Amino acid sequence: MSSIVLDKLRELGALVDEYMEEVLLRDTSGDFREAVLYQVKVGGKRIRPALTILSCEAAGGRIEDAVPVAAAIELVHNYSLILDDIIDRGELRRGKPTLRKVYSDVMAILVATHYRESIVQAINDTKCPVELHSLLATTLKRLIEGERLDILFEQAGRHEEYLIKHRYYNITLNDYFKMIRYKTAELMRASCLSGAIVADADNSIRKSLSEYGLNIGMAFQIVDDLLDIFGEERVFGKKVGKDIIEHKLGNIVVLLSLEELDEVEKRRLLGILRKDEVHDRDVREAITIIKTTTSKERAYRMAKEFIESAIHSLRRLEMTEAREMLEEIGYFIVKRRW
Amino acid sequence: MSSIVLDKLRELGALVDEYMEEVLLRDTSGDFREAVLYQVKVGGKRIRPALTILSCEAAGGRIEDAVPVAAAIELVHNYSLILDDIIDRGELRRGKPTLRKVYSDVMAILVATHYRESIVQAINDTKCPVELHSLLATTLKRLIEGERLDILFEQAGRHEEYLIKHRYYNITLNDYFKMIRYKTAELMRASCLSGAIVADADNSIRKSLSEYGLNIGMAFQIVDDLLDIFGEERVFGKKVGKDIIEHKLGNIVVLLSLEELDEVEKRRLLGILRKDEVHDRDVREAITIIKTTTSKERAYRMAKEFIESAIHSLRRLEMTEAREMLEEIGYFIVKRRW
Repeated sequence: MSSIVLDKLRELGALVDEYMEEVLLRDTSGDFREAVLYQVKVGGKRIRPALTILSCEAAGGRIEDAVPVAAAIELVHNYSLILDDIIDRGELRRGKPTLRKVYSDVMAILVATHYRESIVQAINDTKCPVELHSLLATTLKRLIEGERLDILFEQAGRHEEYLIKHRYYNITLNDYFKMIRYKTAELMRASCLSGAIVADADNSIRKSLSEYGLNIGMAFQIVDDLLDIFGEERVFGKKVGKDIIEHKLGNIVVLLSLEELDEVEKRRLLGILRKDEVHDRDVREAITIIKTTTSKERAYRMAKEFIESAIHSLRRLEMTEAREMLEEIGYFIVKRRW
Repeated sequence: MSSIVLDKLRELGALVDEYMEEVLLRDTSGDFREAVLYQVKVGGKRIRPALTILSCEAAGGRIEDAVPVAAAIELVHNYSLILDDIIDRGELRRGKPTLRKVYSDVMAILVATHYRESIVQAINDTKCPVELHSLLATTLKRLIEGERLDILFEQAGRHEEYLIKHRYYNITLNDYFKMIRYKTAELMRASCLSGAIVADADNSIRKSLSEYGLNIGMAFQIVDDLLDIFGEERVFGKKVGKDIIEHKLGNIVVLLSLEELDEVEKRRLLGILRKDEVHDRDVREAITIIKTTTSKERAYRMAKEFIESAIHSLRRLEMTEAREMLEEIGYFIVKRRW
């Protein structure tokens, strides 16, 4: 099953890649081109533009009307990754050196801001630019808020007074859901909704696809958190326990574990997250503690419930190949190993 | 004369301040508001929104139609200042601690990206969003290119391999003019052109105001360079010789001096710019060397010539109070001491 999904992502991804490069290179000096293209050439699953195109098709629209906005959405994702790597001092992504590592932090800032302008240009190429500009502005403001919360949920590693003063030492599940909704799910929601918008779909279809996107986004982030702790490095392409190394309390597996642990173990786990430098043996210890709880099973159950809600949201849509593929993507998200 | 200009800038600036705050606070969580408003509350001359409003009036448009785009332009300027301070590790601006100094680099990055979304929202409030989105995207891509060149014109102080490899060791006057056009003048051009666009002016008026904006922008940056070397700290609000401290070869006064100096003095001046750390006595020495040349007079003459071209560009416009004020702003720019 999953190879059908991967094939489809590859097929639809190829449709936007050429357009993405073209819009990234508009009004761009020759010397800047290599740095500008680096991030999109590193690859990626292209799941978001596939969601846009499939949502457009499922709502009765034409693929070609979805390409510019699908590309814009994938550029938003890459824009956020470049900034994320600057903020987290990331050195590796998808097994390759990050943009900032190759070109410096200052060039990465310039490339990121350049991406944002290419997004504006891509949206201006669509049939309904004003509505889509507005959707992306709101979505990006939420993404920024999600990133802000994610940073303030970190338990150590940043030394500026403002960040220490505003750090969250206790995070409720509601705080967590708000953070991942903003950080991850709102962009998946916008991916689907923008497909419905360019298909000129009526409000009930827009709402269905919007809810579908939001719910798969929530599941996607929960599975990401699970893979961070339990994933296989070779398959996942990221260092296992990266969230623990980065002192992040905003991981569902950690939060659910803390609910179950006794005071002593709880203090040990939080102690690791709050160490100035987290070593590999600390990560191993944290994972050992986490494995004494049922957090893995509970988190997977949550992810599956979000997927069920997502698929349920599609019920008002006609049964088409595109709708079926959206359902497959839902199932795929909770099964993915990358 | 200059007090008439300052009064006008204050009057028109007040018109956009309220709207700027409103659009900055749209879709913004309570905890983020203080950091978001900091940059615009630090003040500023509001010269760009005044140019937009006056250009709109001079082209026969109504002030109220210009307010959202004028605010957007001022937000673009502030967006670039926040990023500039991150890139140059700036600690003081307008005599106050920079946003990054108070809130940390990572919060400054988030605030900057939030500004860009508020700019989208402001443009969506105008009568001609698609055209203005396109103008701002192109202008910002140029601004980024200008910033990129400015960084690569630095002679020391950055240690990443990519930056050292791509550094410019010789800069022609053409390189310099390209850099300041992109870094400074294109946004002033967009300030004026956007006023003409919301006034629905015909092409010849658009062209006049566009050329006016570009030329005063060139003069503005040359005067900025002059003030950096010869300004009075108390009046100017910045440290004298900041460009020298920051190893910037992209300052017209330095470039014109190098043309006149003999080999020995030339090597001394370049040697200071290329020191890993430039101390106050180095700055004093550099300024002493510069003062043996006629670079100050030559740079002022250049600035005046740009202002003359700017004012000449306005000849096709009807003689109105707004046009007179644009002329006054031109004269004011070469006389300013801040």
